[in-house]
Amino acid sequence: MKEVLFQKKEGLSALAYKEIKSMILANVLKPADIFSEAQLQEMLKIGRTPVREAVLQLSQEGFLIVHPRRGIEVARISPKRIKDIFEIRSLMEPEILRIGFSKIDRERLYEIRDEFLSYKGSDFNLTKSDTLHLSDLDNELHMTIVNSISNDYATELMISFNDYLTLFRASTTIENIRFEPSNLEHIAIIESILKDDVEEAALRLTDHLDESYKESIKIVMNIAT
Amino acid sequence: MKEVLFQKKEGLSALAYKEIKSMILANVLKPADIFSEAQLQEMLKIGRTPVREAVLQLSQEGFLIVHPRRGIEVARISPKRIKDIFEIRSLMEPEILRIGFSKIDRERLYEIRDEFLSYKGSDFNLTKSDTLHLSDLDNELHMTIVNSISNDYATELMISFNDYLTLFRASTTIENIRFEPSNLEHIAIIESILKDDVEEAALRLTDHLDESYKESIKIVMNIAT
Repeated sequence: MKEVLFQKKEGLSALAYKEIKSMILANVLKPADIFSEAQLQEMLKIGRTPVREAVLQLSQEGFLIVHPRRGIEVARISPKRIKDIFEIRSLMEPEILRIGFSKIDRERLYEIRDEFLSYKGSDFNLTKSDTLHLSDLDNELHMTIVNSISNDYATELMISFNDYLTLFRASTTIENIRFEPSNLEHIAIIESILKDDVEEAALRLTDHLDESYKESIKIVMNIAT
Repeated sequence: MKEVLFQKKEGLSALAYKEIKSMILANVLKPADIFSEAQLQEMLKIGRTPVREAVLQLSQEGFLIVHPRRGIEVARISPKRIKDIFEIRSLMEPEILRIGFSKIDRERLYEIRDEFLSYKGSDFNLTKSDTLHLSDLDNELHMTIVNSISNDYATELMISFNDYLTLFRASTTIENIRFEPSNLEHIAIIESILKDDVEEAALRLTDHLDESYKESIKIVMNIAT
């Protein structure tokens, strides 16, 4: 009976974790917002212990900051964190692309490319839902590349990078983000893979990460000031 | 008052986490051992909730497996996990060494080298405490290299790799581990850095990771059979 309860509790913590993280990533809970544990319990209709476990984990992952006697804060993404993410990505992703090149899922790449193509030229007419979809497509492309090497660590790291960047994008306005050039870079990477040119693909991926980094750091510095 | 309690609880969970992990890494709790939550509470003299939170986190990190109605098991390290660790390390570490080369802490390298040198030729006379110390020195050398780029992700990843490998080493016997060749490889890497030859150092690091991987996979396959 004890273990059954334990399982159930783990399930509720996992649910609370998922729900709170979704609210952060969807910008329902915004960076620098402060709220109480009781408010979270009320929003989620989940009890105290699972909410605490979820908050604990999200604070260890850098999404929340627990201020004793003041409340729970949604973390801002710092320039240092953006730098750390892109440094490791630039170091890993082109190499992963080389190692897993023959195993990258081409079918999926065709689909992702066609979706990117359907947005061509629409930079000034994007709805909030379009920008969320483009952000998902972006994550999907990078995950399709990383999944080619079937390495749990690489996958977990990319999931964590994507979550941070999603949180980061959620805290910026549409005007700040360079969708059109970024989409074109994504399409170019895909085209290089589809014509089986591994070195061109690696180079385009490196350039794309470099551009994304420069853009991200520009935005984060603006937010910080 | 509520938040003070929360803080205190976080502290107890963190303590339970640290204690249980230490017992796993020191081989007090051995791979494939099964125990109950009550036994853990008794060993640690810590209450139910912090122990549960700690077990939950350690199971998410792959150190423990929670079997409903059967108990909590210390995980074995699988060949797949060894492969994943070394693949990412081989991909990251030599590149990190290149990027951070000028900032690697030379003072610390001299100390680590001298400690490795003091073990030269003693492969058949190592006590358990010697082997633990050599394992720590090994971790320290790799961390000294990784710390040169001051990247939180890289550091966290290396800490997690080191923990898995320590757990892995703890579950093998002395006879299985190639201390002497590994020490010589470590000394060679350090010498290349100290004479400022970045490419020789990167090459020796790559070779060392490759040899360590081959040895680890040989041991893990023996354990598995």
